[in-house]
Amino acid sequence: MRKYLLENEWSVIEEGFDESLNKVSESIFSTGNGKFGNRANFEEYYSGSSLLGNYISGIYYPDKTKVGWWKNGYPEYFAKVLNAPNWLGIKTKINANKLDLAASKLMDFRRELNMKSGLLSKSYQATLSSGESVLVQSERFISMANDEIAAIKYQITSEFEGTLELLLDIDGDIVNSDSNYDEKFWVEIDKSADSRYLTVETKKTKFRVSESFAYKIYKNGTEAMELNPESLESDKYIGHQCNIFVQKGDVISIEKFVSVCSSLYYDNDLLSNTAIQKAHAAALTGYDQLKEEHLDAWSERWRDGDIIIEGDVAAQQGIRFNIFQLHQTYTGKDARLNIGPKGLTGEKYGGSTYWDTEAYCLPFYMSTAAKEVSYNLLKYRYQQLDKAIENAQKLGFHSGAALFPMVTMNGEECHNEWEITFEEIHRNGAIAYAIFNYCRYYDDQSYLTEGGLEVLIAISRFWAQRVNFSKHKNQYVMLGVTGPNEYENNVNNNWYTNRIASWCLEYTRECMQYLEESKVEKLSSIKEKVSWNDSEGEKWQDIIENMYYPVDTNDRLKLQQDGFLDKDIYAAKEIPAGQRPIHEHWSWDRILRSCFIKQADVLQGLWFLEHLYDKDTIEINFDYYEPLTVHESSLSSCIHSIQASLLGKHDKAYQFYLNASRLDLDDYNNDTKDGLHITSMGGTWMTIVYGFAGMRVKENRLTFTPNLPHNWKSFNFNLLFRGQQMNVNIGKKEIILTNHGTEKVSVVILDKCYEIDLNNSKSIKYE
Amino acid sequence: MRKYLLENEWSVIEEGFDESLNKVSESIFSTGNGKFGNRANFEEYYSGSSLLGNYISGIYYPDKTKVGWWKNGYPEYFAKVLNAPNWLGIKTKINANKLDLAASKLMDFRRELNMKSGLLSKSYQATLSSGESVLVQSERFISMANDEIAAIKYQITSEFEGTLELLLDIDGDIVNSDSNYDEKFWVEIDKSADSRYLTVETKKTKFRVSESFAYKIYKNGTEAMELNPESLESDKYIGHQCNIFVQKGDVISIEKFVSVCSSLYYDNDLLSNTAIQKAHAAALTGYDQLKEEHLDAWSERWRDGDIIIEGDVAAQQGIRFNIFQLHQTYTGKDARLNIGPKGLTGEKYGGSTYWDTEAYCLPFYMSTAAKEVSYNLLKYRYQQLDKAIENAQKLGFHSGAALFPMVTMNGEECHNEWEITFEEIHRNGAIAYAIFNYCRYYDDQSYLTEGGLEVLIAISRFWAQRVNFSKHKNQYVMLGVTGPNEYENNVNNNWYTNRIASWCLEYTRECMQYLEESKVEKLSSIKEKVSWNDSEGEKWQDIIENMYYPVDTNDRLKLQQDGFLDKDIYAAKEIPAGQRPIHEHWSWDRILRSCFIKQADVLQGLWFLEHLYDKDTIEINFDYYEPLTVHESSLSSCIHSIQASLLGKHDKAYQFYLNASRLDLDDYNNDTKDGLHITSMGGTWMTIVYGFAGMRVKENRLTFTPNLPHNWKSFNFNLLFRGQQMNVNIGKKEIILTNHGTEKVSVVILDKCYEIDLNNSKSIKYE
Repeated sequence: MRKYLLENEWSVIEEGFDESLNKVSESIFSTGNGKFGNRANFEEYYSGSSLLGNYISGIYYPDKTKVGWWKNGYPEYFAKVLNAPNWLGIKTKINANKLDLAASKLMDFRRELNMKSGLLSKSYQATLSSGESVLVQSERFISMANDEIAAIKYQITSEFEGTLELLLDIDGDIVNSDSNYDEKFWVEIDKSADSRYLTVETKKTKFRVSESFAYKIYKNGTEAMELNPESLESDKYIGHQCNIFVQKGDVISIEKFVSVCSSLYYDNDLLSNTAIQKAHAAALTGYDQLKEEHLDAWSERWRDGDIIIEGDVAAQQGIRFNIFQLHQTYTGKDARLNIGPKGLTGEKYGGSTYWDTEAYCLPFYMSTAAKEVSYNLLKYRYQQLDKAIENAQKLGFHSGAALFPMVTMNGEECHNEWEITFEEIHRNGAIAYAIFNYCRYYDDQSYLTEGGLEVLIAISRFWAQRVNFSKHKNQYVMLGVTGPNEYENNVNNNWYTNRIASWCLEYTRECMQYLEESKVEKLSSIKEKVSWNDSEGEKWQDIIENMYYPVDTNDRLKLQQDGFLDKDIYAAKEIPAGQRPIHEHWSWDRILRSCFIKQADVLQGLWFLEHLYDKDTIEINFDYYEPLTVHESSLSSCIHSIQASLLGKHDKAYQFYLNASRLDLDDYNNDTKDGLHITSMGGTWMTIVYGFAGMRVKENRLTFTPNLPHNWKSFNFNLLFRGQQMNVNIGKKEIILTNHGTEKVSVVILDKCYEIDLNNSKSIKYE
Repeated sequence: MRKYLLENEWSVIEEGFDESLNKVSESIFSTGNGKFGNRANFEEYYSGSSLLGNYISGIYYPDKTKVGWWKNGYPEYFAKVLNAPNWLGIKTKINANKLDLAASKLMDFRRELNMKSGLLSKSYQATLSSGESVLVQSERFISMANDEIAAIKYQITSEFEGTLELLLDIDGDIVNSDSNYDEKFWVEIDKSADSRYLTVETKKTKFRVSESFAYKIYKNGTEAMELNPESLESDKYIGHQCNIFVQKGDVISIEKFVSVCSSLYYDNDLLSNTAIQKAHAAALTGYDQLKEEHLDAWSERWRDGDIIIEGDVAAQQGIRFNIFQLHQTYTGKDARLNIGPKGLTGEKYGGSTYWDTEAYCLPFYMSTAAKEVSYNLLKYRYQQLDKAIENAQKLGFHSGAALFPMVTMNGEECHNEWEITFEEIHRNGAIAYAIFNYCRYYDDQSYLTEGGLEVLIAISRFWAQRVNFSKHKNQYVMLGVTGPNEYENNVNNNWYTNRIASWCLEYTRECMQYLEESKVEKLSSIKEKVSWNDSEGEKWQDIIENMYYPVDTNDRLKLQQDGFLDKDIYAAKEIPAGQRPIHEHWSWDRILRSCFIKQADVLQGLWFLEHLYDKDTIEINFDYYEPLTVHESSLSSCIHSIQASLLGKHDKAYQFYLNASRLDLDDYNNDTKDGLHITSMGGTWMTIVYGFAGMRVKENRLTFTPNLPHNWKSFNFNLLFRGQQMNVNIGKKEIILTNHGTEKVSVVILDKCYEIDLNNSKSIKYE
């Protein structure tokens, strides 16, 4: 953990430059627009420690898998998030000496990411070892309005007299830091320095990307003409270089307009020209106009999804940072894209889709973005159903059973550890649950006949084959699984997995029953499509009724898995501080045998299926498992915070919230340098809305059970619910709901139902 | 499985050449002398499919580990058995065209490995595509008498007129087929083609190897002088090339004498000269004399350890092949060496030492070789005790607890799967058991104070820390282990592991008690050395008395692990034939969840600790587990065969014997091409001696309970027991023991004790 950034309600600010923190800052100050993004690498030369990262959503490379010992069923490749050509370059030489930020003396260094506007700016005075100094101010954005455009405004004030050599470039000769075999993944297709574009293609997957730039250079406010730039070309590289003679006090200002276009959206033969034209058009539009459009796009997002916290700047900054990064990662316009664990801020872990999306991100997008966004997240899985069925077949399942991948880009599994790939199958449950959650939130079952039921049936078929009947127990068991708590591997009868499996069977049956009654023809055609056999339903019912769940003698205490009570059980707080996080200090062997829990497991089940359990049961399990949990996954704190809120454990709830919301800003786990924890950011949002505001959809109504962290004056958030825009304001003893929607809404606050008219507010006192 | 070799009592013979079988033959016809060895690669050019393999015992490379996902405690490297410079080359061009055995038409191809003499010979007529033909006869051996010398006699009879170009070389520019990152592992240190030597060094480990050759060439029986060979040199390569004009019927005979010397035995500055001198001296000694010494060395080995089977050529060939390869792999002269799973016949699996050595090989060497050989096997582990303690420390153990590695070269763990490295800890048990077995076989406890007790204490300390007390069960449990059955991973309370752990504690306590009574001073100094605390003994006793063992309701049926009875249990014979072996057809997931057992697990425990269980218990468990066992480890059949013999299941015993003894000859598992299954060969020997002959050491006496496979007329083997040489002959109804030793021996046959005088025989009838 390290705190070096200034606390501010709307901005993340770094003052002073510490090279050892550069990679952390590169992650934190990342910018993106859902389609492409990059880390806060410098435009300048930088010979210090840096993780160069430019990412384009949906563009990946199937890197040859690296495993210790091959086992049948392992995937052939691991999909790497690709480091794409770097378009940032605005590199300067002063009297032939590089302005290298790692080799210069920097004064008054300041970097700011304004989250309201999505603008990244920095300023500093640099003095070269040769003695010359300059003042630099830069600002850049990746446009939320024009999602193939980025722009940089870069200004140099000379404190010397001599030659300023400017190099503006696009460099495609880059590597992925996590390439398994040190391969480069791109090959050059086409380029022209004169026309200022570079087109490259990925090996194997043949994705093409074309990047182009245009620019304007001003000297003391006047556009500099006759610069006679020299065109530079080398392998996968283009640049323009020009020399400007400057005197002390001269101000050189550069505007660089960049387009990033890919074959996901254009035919190969149009790609280069499209990129050239888009960069050119952006330059014509001009920096200020582009920026204004960008600001407008951001202001819409804040209108629909801001959370305002009064009285706690750190908390305010934390939640806005989470919301901001989620929007930068995924905009929901394209159902082929998803939300990778590092978003567009790093390449670690590879793949773009984990169960995190359904479990932690979907609720955020449902409440803060157009319905299409969430719909596209569900549709993403439906599009990949055939591959999930193939994936299950590779493992020996049949008859249309589907196992969705643990990690994927295109629907194929690409994770490479048997204990995860083959065993962490609860992910299927989260994918089914997302359908339930979506239908419940929108009170709209139409998705069931648009793919949903097919996904549910395929998942249920998987569960029905994955269990086996234990003659010994006279019940169905599920052997050899890994639960959400990845600090256990290959356990038998993980309570959560057994429970979510059985729930999937039940929910799928309910959905079929619902369609039987309401859309029988559509149901028939789905049944025919999936070769449904009624005996399947009977088998499912038998499993539902005879599933084994490990429990303690008090059967309200659910056991994480068979044999859990044989462990040496003591509280995580007894682990010496120097041994935390345990995954950095203990051998894997010791971790596996220990009682310590990486992230919510039984509690995850009780979160998803909260509507089926009473509060006492949740409390018994929370009180048992929470002390054993080390929260070494970014996905842990949020669930615990929400449940602590539910159970009235307000201090705990607040502490978990802080951990979750400032995980990256304060670099809790010493891994922010690799990129941000994007998917957990949805969970952070949930801690406020589902936790502190106690929002649920119950009996088809939005309900709230508010509580306010004691050091907050109030918090306030906007919310979309079934097309209606609402504002929720929670103060110390009062909750005010305002209906900004188009029709009357009825909400439940603290178990009482209220109707709120259009453009009206309702204020309810609470204790 | 494929049978293409002729059955013969003393030889392995291949007639006709099938390129698709070449790699299999290369493995099977391997030769070696414990110090170095190679696969039966051709001396000639060979452009076909081949696995080049020259191996030098104890020379390895720490290849960078390849794992999917790093976990704390993983070893940094995986020790690769190194493919060393190839000294075989006797390459011929005929009128400038290569004699390439893959590109020529071969007639009358015959290859023979004579196991009595350790000679590999081959002969053929080859016709080149250019029309010329030659007859070739070759013979080679790696001397068992001069263990740094090999010799080849190679004869070409010309059926053409023209120029024969001969190239004799040493090629060090070779690769390891299983290099993780396609690195080459050797660098050149020194060479001279004129002086005919090449010295190379391994990267990182800095092992040096110097190889040199000398040669004589005869034309029609007369040594050819004035050949004016041309010296060839390139990177890591030396050769001599000369041209001989031949007429039809001319016989060119080449004798190549090779020395292989390493820095394991010589200082670096002496190495090259030593190799040169040794090759030179070998040439002076001459091929025939070297061969005679080699034959004598082999005849000694057969005298002490042959097994003669009458009436079953396949079985006879099988057992001799196993004995032969064991002697080729390990001679016991150097306690730094050990018995790798592929010996000197392949590089797969890496490392040289697994628990196989103690479990399956030690009994063979105890009974067929000088005591020093077995002593050195024990000493090997003692020498590595410090590293085993370090290894345990890395995993979080302390106070002198030792975990011997799963795979090692120098005492450091180099395996790279957590489920094996961290969890397959029963290996510690086998290492302790070997000490017990050695002391029992030799009735000699002196090793206890020469390292044995230190090893036992360190192992027992590990067990005492590895268990934990389950409050739930009120007993000690052992969580997160992998038993010998590697088709289960990370299970709780593997019966075998729990049992051998408890046994280790008990045996260590007994040894300490014994020394307390007999060598109290030595015990005191050991206690001081290991910082013994008497409370440790008390803790151990508590564990011994309160260890949990999973059992069925009939507590004589031991359960492989907790939860075993929850599996879907059915016999392996019900698996469709097309799905066997399951490891080639089923996903790892399916295998783990299945009830199928890779190799003896509970039964392994009942084999080691047979003396503590009654026959009924063994039978109950054999009858339960044997049908579930798929024997997909080469180490499985032998234990099952021995137990089947014990239980009077003679047909099963014989079938398991055949599987074990002809595993490689008949390529049962389609993997002989990678090298031979050396360590299981000790197990094969055990099936005859411990199985069919029913040999045991009981109550300090050698005992026999013979039975003869029904299609055998008799079998007969020599045996060393406590310095005495004996012969055991088992016929249909009679067992004859002959004492060739130096004193009277007393043996038990079918529960009756007999004394046999020096050079006398005893014949006992049995039913």
